[in-house]
Amino acid sequence: MEGGKFKVEREMINGVQIHDLKQIVLPKGDLWHACKSTDEGFVGFGEVYFTQINKGEVKGWKRHNRYQLNLVVLQGKVRFVIYDGRTDSKTYGDLAEITLSPKDYYKRLTVPAGVWMAFQGIDDGVNMLMDLIPEPHDSSEADNKELDEISFAW
Amino acid sequence: MEGGKFKVEREMINGVQIHDLKQIVLPKGDLWHACKSTDEGFVGFGEVYFTQINKGEVKGWKRHNRYQLNLVVLQGKVRFVIYDGRTDSKTYGDLAEITLSPKDYYKRLTVPAGVWMAFQGIDDGVNMLMDLIPEPHDSSEADNKELDEISFAW
Repeated sequence: MEGGKFKVEREMINGVQIHDLKQIVLPKGDLWHACKSTDEGFVGFGEVYFTQINKGEVKGWKRHNRYQLNLVVLQGKVRFVIYDGRTDSKTYGDLAEITLSPKDYYKRLTVPAGVWMAFQGIDDGVNMLMDLIPEPHDSSEADNKELDEISFAW
Repeated sequence: MEGGKFKVEREMINGVQIHDLKQIVLPKGDLWHACKSTDEGFVGFGEVYFTQINKGEVKGWKRHNRYQLNLVVLQGKVRFVIYDGRTDSKTYGDLAEITLSPKDYYKRLTVPAGVWMAFQGIDDGVNMLMDLIPEPHDSSEADNKELDEISFAW
């Protein structure tokens, strides 16, 4: 049973970054930025895919051992919780959470390799995020834990 | 006033490709593939962004002169119409259309540089697509035409 002290979003886990993204309002339909190759936090393109998370459900915990993730929520609202289990990290043992939504907090979340993450659907409708990873998906690079193995009050 | 003969989707414009994509049904929320670096049609990563198109509205015509586009519709339904104005193309003068939707036709559409494209929102709600381009966006690489400059019965 791991756990840790909770930190508010702007005192994030070491290496976790929150980047501003533009939503450009246009008469025929808006244009939303997501990620450029020149952006901070981008480390290469291997795959982009979409994940949905139903209201109240949590996917995780998962730790990517090679991938730095870039995450953008496109629909609904998604709560991300990150736990730093890297013993050599200056934020070792810390937990942090951030909730993203295109309606009121449209940001790109960069999550470094080596930390644990879980995420929860918040809205009644579809909660969907884009995940951009630096290699085509390879399930062998990730580790999983049961939800109750890292203590967090979901 | 340009125009051309109409072709059904599977006799597409030269270089236009429609790729199957998986939608993996999962109990807590589905996972939808979009694009991998190893996929046919992928030619490099410069930027990924999202475009919405309101019902009945049309964005276009636009011709990208350097970018090959990879397009995935995530929400609603979007109709794409492509006109081949490349005088050295074996499909010169042809028009083709394809309608994508995550509900009943979830595919990745690859559009080569040099053709004209316009797209229309079909559903009442949000119609949103992902566009993956091989360079960070540069408006100087594209040309635009008014909608009535290429004849199509929208």
